[in-house]
Amino acid sequence: MAEPDPIAELIRLLARLPGIGERSAGRLVFHLLAGDPGYTEALGGALEALHQRVKRCVECGNFGPGERCAVCQDPRREDDVICVVARVPDLHAIERSGSFRGRYHVLHRLLAPLDGVGPADLPLDALVERVRRHGTREVIVATPLNVEGEATALFVAQVLAAEGVSVSRIASGMPHGGELEFTDQVTLGRALSGRRSLG
Amino acid sequence: MAEPDPIAELIRLLARLPGIGERSAGRLVFHLLAGDPGYTEALGGALEALHQRVKRCVECGNFGPGERCAVCQDPRREDDVICVVARVPDLHAIERSGSFRGRYHVLHRLLAPLDGVGPADLPLDALVERVRRHGTREVIVATPLNVEGEATALFVAQVLAAEGVSVSRIASGMPHGGELEFTDQVTLGRALSGRRSLG
Repeated sequence: MAEPDPIAELIRLLARLPGIGERSAGRLVFHLLAGDPGYTEALGGALEALHQRVKRCVECGNFGPGERCAVCQDPRREDDVICVVARVPDLHAIERSGSFRGRYHVLHRLLAPLDGVGPADLPLDALVERVRRHGTREVIVATPLNVEGEATALFVAQVLAAEGVSVSRIASGMPHGGELEFTDQVTLGRALSGRRSLG
Repeated sequence: MAEPDPIAELIRLLARLPGIGERSAGRLVFHLLAGDPGYTEALGGALEALHQRVKRCVECGNFGPGERCAVCQDPRREDDVICVVARVPDLHAIERSGSFRGRYHVLHRLLAPLDGVGPADLPLDALVERVRRHGTREVIVATPLNVEGEATALFVAQVLAAEGVSVSRIASGMPHGGELEFTDQVTLGRALSGRRSLG
């Protein structure tokens, strides 16, 4: 085959995506070659422009087309509660639940000393600054319920300790529809210790 | 959220790829946003240019960067045998097997009357023309062993009947390493009826 093979090059690039191996990358390329060139060009153009068109909100770190994201620009959101999340998809999940009307703060990473992510890598100065500026009443820490998420939550609480803001953690317990029989013991332990009075 | 959302647009485009749903498309986009912008741009550029950089060989229909593909340009290939395949990945599979040194003819589709693919949609005029021009000795039809592949193989043989070229079909039987116990009955039937003398 000739030197600069565009098919091999595209397969190599696609195979670097998570969940796509060499084989499925090959299938994708031949699927694209058999299909509408306009679609492939649109897909390529959208990818090429992605990082230029998607900016991190200067206020909260959420993604958006402009300097400030849609949530930060929305005057109907409550200003006195900030929900701290690890990643933008987590923010979307909370938005879909429809149970939060405040602002967000996206960390984009979690404390992970073994991977070289330390306290200075989290945008917590910005969080403290926002809390002071808005006189925030409560910060809800909605990082994931795993080791790194828990460690980060504790650290956020520590950083905010002197700010006179109440810091809370999302509840841990049985998921909706969960069967006790098939629930892991840590979750079950938390569901028991976090029990609430029905009286 | 604001009107032209580049994230939603890219998710929509990616979700049109086979095997990628809305959810995995979302995961891919956030994976890209968290990663190296240079990689995403390279991937986008390669996709955008794909149809421009990959041409169908005017001789055989194989993909390649130029007017004539690498196989057709290779002077060491035998000129008197042509292998007819349905798709370019099939050609690659045969190349990998290392058991064919002739030329190819890629149909890019199979007879499928229900999907509106009729005899006129197959590049068989070009095949006949090549057979005449090169005085081809044998045409091996390596379309898949399914209904459409078999129908197409019969049709290719019919078209070439008057050309004085021998037309053969790849063998059907047990795959290498196949266990009789787990082989479907059609395959087993073909393996029996196609038995070869060991004497």
